[in-house]
Amino acid sequence: MLDLGAYLSELRSLVLEQIRAIIPRDHRLGPVLYDLMLDYPLRAAKGLRPALCVATCCALGGSLRAALRSSAVLELYHNAFLIHDDVEDGSDLRRDGPTLHEIRGVPVAVNVGDAMLALAMEPLLDNVRDLGVGKALRIMQVIARMARESAEGQAMELDWIARRRRDVGEVDYVRMVHKKSGWYTFVAPMLIGAIVAGVLPGELHRIGRIAVPLGVAFQIQDDLLNLVGDPGRTGKRRWSDLWEGKYTLMLLHVLRAAPPDDRRRIERVLSGKGARGPSSPPAVDTGGRDRIRLLVRAEEQRGAIGGELADALVALLAGEPGGRGGLDEGPDEEGAEFILHTMERVGSIDRARRIAGRHASRASRALAAYAPLRGTSDHHLFLEEIMKYVVSRPE
Amino acid sequence: MLDLGAYLSELRSLVLEQIRAIIPRDHRLGPVLYDLMLDYPLRAAKGLRPALCVATCCALGGSLRAALRSSAVLELYHNAFLIHDDVEDGSDLRRDGPTLHEIRGVPVAVNVGDAMLALAMEPLLDNVRDLGVGKALRIMQVIARMARESAEGQAMELDWIARRRRDVGEVDYVRMVHKKSGWYTFVAPMLIGAIVAGVLPGELHRIGRIAVPLGVAFQIQDDLLNLVGDPGRTGKRRWSDLWEGKYTLMLLHVLRAAPPDDRRRIERVLSGKGARGPSSPPAVDTGGRDRIRLLVRAEEQRGAIGGELADALVALLAGEPGGRGGLDEGPDEEGAEFILHTMERVGSIDRARRIAGRHASRASRALAAYAPLRGTSDHHLFLEEIMKYVVSRPE
Repeated sequence: MLDLGAYLSELRSLVLEQIRAIIPRDHRLGPVLYDLMLDYPLRAAKGLRPALCVATCCALGGSLRAALRSSAVLELYHNAFLIHDDVEDGSDLRRDGPTLHEIRGVPVAVNVGDAMLALAMEPLLDNVRDLGVGKALRIMQVIARMARESAEGQAMELDWIARRRRDVGEVDYVRMVHKKSGWYTFVAPMLIGAIVAGVLPGELHRIGRIAVPLGVAFQIQDDLLNLVGDPGRTGKRRWSDLWEGKYTLMLLHVLRAAPPDDRRRIERVLSGKGARGPSSPPAVDTGGRDRIRLLVRAEEQRGAIGGELADALVALLAGEPGGRGGLDEGPDEEGAEFILHTMERVGSIDRARRIAGRHASRASRALAAYAPLRGTSDHHLFLEEIMKYVVSRPE
Repeated sequence: MLDLGAYLSELRSLVLEQIRAIIPRDHRLGPVLYDLMLDYPLRAAKGLRPALCVATCCALGGSLRAALRSSAVLELYHNAFLIHDDVEDGSDLRRDGPTLHEIRGVPVAVNVGDAMLALAMEPLLDNVRDLGVGKALRIMQVIARMARESAEGQAMELDWIARRRRDVGEVDYVRMVHKKSGWYTFVAPMLIGAIVAGVLPGELHRIGRIAVPLGVAFQIQDDLLNLVGDPGRTGKRRWSDLWEGKYTLMLLHVLRAAPPDDRRRIERVLSGKGARGPSSPPAVDTGGRDRIRLLVRAEEQRGAIGGELADALVALLAGEPGGRGGLDEGPDEEGAEFILHTMERVGSIDRARRIAGRHASRASRALAAYAPLRGTSDHHLFLEEIMKYVVSRPE
């Protein structure tokens, strides 16, 4: 038996060391740029992506040292994506703290993310020296594809949200999460680990067969945790996916399977009209409302607008002119409970669990079928444990 | 004599062709991602960066064809930066049209910029095949440095704006514009052109000696045009730099050189209290106010909030509850006129013109001193013309 937590935390400290070596120390630019790059990486996190990269590399006979720099690049990209995603989704909580744009405003957050993406190119070029040109270039190709897949997935979901699309099929959902998170959480880390270890291009599809279903299973489970998990463990706000308009298997199912009256009530909750009834103006979805509220607060933090105006705006956004009352009311908890209960009643939750389980089993079988990844080292055991972990993370 | 306009427009169409080849055609992702990448590049623009890259390459004996792909990458980066900068600066007008986040909202604009940066990596990797590994890697190094310098410059200015710093010296100003725009407008294009042409690493500082002062001269002139130029030519809103809190030589000078009373009035105008007097609430700088206004409109466009709420918010932002009146009032034109007249009176404008001229002369001398760049081809003439053009662009 492997202690998954111990394996992850040991690697995490090695990767953080690498990240610190990549980020320049600059007494003038530190406080406005480089120190901010360390904010998210230093918050409590599992470090799953670098661990997958290192484990795959070592299980295939490569060296930990050779995979570390590319692992750190994956972690930098991941954190840059998180910063930009938090801006795009209007999230206010990340890893148990306020999101970067909440603290420093949207302009700084967008720029810090861009700078991290720029900085991540340098170690990829340094790879040429240590890994040789061939491997270094193939790793860059994977990173370029990863960044693109991720933006494509994000574009798909942003479009669905903007158009309030309700006719999204499950095939499209799987395609979206594969692009948006599967590629950079599982596919790229495992491919890069394999490339560092010397797996030839013609063999890499064997890695993909493991990583692709694993990514889909992981995201479904992530969505489940936001609905039914303990917010203390996810580091995000309970039910934030509902208020940000995120698409999940559970939501798509309940909107198909619930009786018409319940469906209409769910739609009202999602569009922020919830308990207040369908005719209550102003018509504002909570995603948009929350987004503007954050932006107002960010501008307040920057000193661009006064606290009084910010309060007035926030109250106005809540549809209740005058005072902080509107802000503290928060999202429609009663409405969210109703959605959750309906999902349980019509089987959306169990069904999503089963689908996640099927994808995870597919990944397990592909792992078992790939002889070079069978073994008894900690790295082999880590990969085996991950198959179970993705669908049994503590709720 | 070279026809600068004809040279630029011929290259621009070749570069657009390359960009079209880089951006995937995808009927599903087109409308939500890839078509949006073409929005800024297709608007009227000079295409200065790719032209500088190609001209430098050809003047040094390289081939136009060999430089074209990297030129297109520079243009992609430039346009991705513009999209993100417009979000960060809260600009509403770019190249005579609404900014991308005005049209599609901040989330989509941030994501399209990210996707363009991801996409730009692929042609850089393709360079390996056509230019060889050595040149391809050195070009990537320049691109990585360029992206980083640009984010560093942006971080410097965002910090000054947030802290309303008034003690910024001219050395710091020059350092900021060199990083923020000089590097990616002149240094990177000319370095990459030289690398493609086969200039060895030890010689590249000769290119830097031309490109660095040219970048500074160009930015000072750009700032002058925003103040005293014809908005019909800049494609941006008249005086937008003042409302966005941008730092310019002219502003730094007038705040040092104007009599105390005038200085106080300028500060009031800049902090959005302008003609309305210093005690008029709400305390909101027009940069912040405009930024939130745009974000409100973007959310409205996305359908996230209703038009009525958007109007109410915008009116509230203008300090005048009720109706569209607040919006149409616009920034404090009278205050801006006062700043401009004070700048003229205390010599800030002329002084900035002289400083831009000095930097441009330094660039000219460095060009004349670098024998391989002396010649009579169109490419040589283009580089010579550019020296004059940066400080004599039509106002």
